[in-house]
Amino acid sequence: MVQDFLHLSITTRDLERSVRFYETLGLQVTQRFGDVAEPGIATAFRLPSSHLKVVYLAAPQGRSGLFIDLVEWVEPTAQGQSYPVANHVGLNRFALRVSDLDALVGTLKEAGVSFLSDEPQSFGVGIRCIVVTDPDGVFVQLIEGL
Amino acid sequence: MVQDFLHLSITTRDLERSVRFYETLGLQVTQRFGDVAEPGIATAFRLPSSHLKVVYLAAPQGRSGLFIDLVEWVEPTAQGQSYPVANHVGLNRFALRVSDLDALVGTLKEAGVSFLSDEPQSFGVGIRCIVVTDPDGVFVQLIEGL
Repeated sequence: MVQDFLHLSITTRDLERSVRFYETLGLQVTQRFGDVAEPGIATAFRLPSSHLKVVYLAAPQGRSGLFIDLVEWVEPTAQGQSYPVANHVGLNRFALRVSDLDALVGTLKEAGVSFLSDEPQSFGVGIRCIVVTDPDGVFVQLIEGL
Repeated sequence: MVQDFLHLSITTRDLERSVRFYETLGLQVTQRFGDVAEPGIATAFRLPSSHLKVVYLAAPQGRSGLFIDLVEWVEPTAQGQSYPVANHVGLNRFALRVSDLDALVGTLKEAGVSFLSDEPQSFGVGIRCIVVTDPDGVFVQLIEGL
C-alpha cells in the first residue's frame, strides 16, 4: 500500500556542480553515499552494472520529508540530455514552494542561473511562478502563493 | 526562499489512462482542471501557446502534501518519449514509500503493470524496492522499509 511520496531522482553528469546549484536554490545536503555498488541496484533498474555516487538534498524548512536523490552514474555512465521542452512526455519537472519569489530570483540571477522566462508569471489569484533549469537542464518550477 | 517541495509534473499522452494507472498504484485524484489556457503558462514554459488538461493526484494516507501534477498538453501537443533507461540524464524517476510491497506487487501484476525486474530487490538493512513504469514509460520506484 502506498504511504507517501519519498523522493525524486535526478541523474546528473556532474554531482558537485548540481549540489552547488541546489544549495544556491536553498536546499541542503542531508546525506552522501560516495560509492554505491550493490548488485541489486543493477537488477532493480535493469542495467548491466551499477556503480553510482549519490547525494540527498532536502528543504531545510520543509515538512514534506521529501528529498532529491541526486545520482551520478559511474558505471554505466549517464547518457542523453534532459527533456528540451516542457511539453515533452515523461517526468518533466518538479516544483518548489517558495516565499519572496522576487528576492530569490534576484539571488539566482546574480548566481548566473538560467530561466525560461524573463520575469515571474502570474496565475489565478496571487500565484506566481518562474521556471529555472538546473545544470543538466532539468526544469525546476518556483511557485509563490500556492 | 525555498519552503518545501510542492509537486512533480508528468506530461502524459493520455490523461485518463494515466489516472487509472496511478489510482491502481493507490494514489487519489484531488483536483481536476479541464481546460487550462492562461497565456502566462506559455510564457513561463517558453512555449508558443498553452492549452492543457491537468489532474492532481496525492497519496491519501500521506503527510508530505506532495502531489503529482499530471498534464496532457492539448496545444502544443506532447512530444517525444520518456527516458528509456535509469541512467539517462534528467529528472529520471520518483519514489513512493509503501508498506507490504509484496501484496502491492501482486495487485499490480494482476492489473498488467510493467516492472523493470521480476522480483523486488533488497538493499542495506530491510530496504526492498521494485521499479514499475507508468503508461508513458515513467519510472516509479516502490520502496519498502525506508
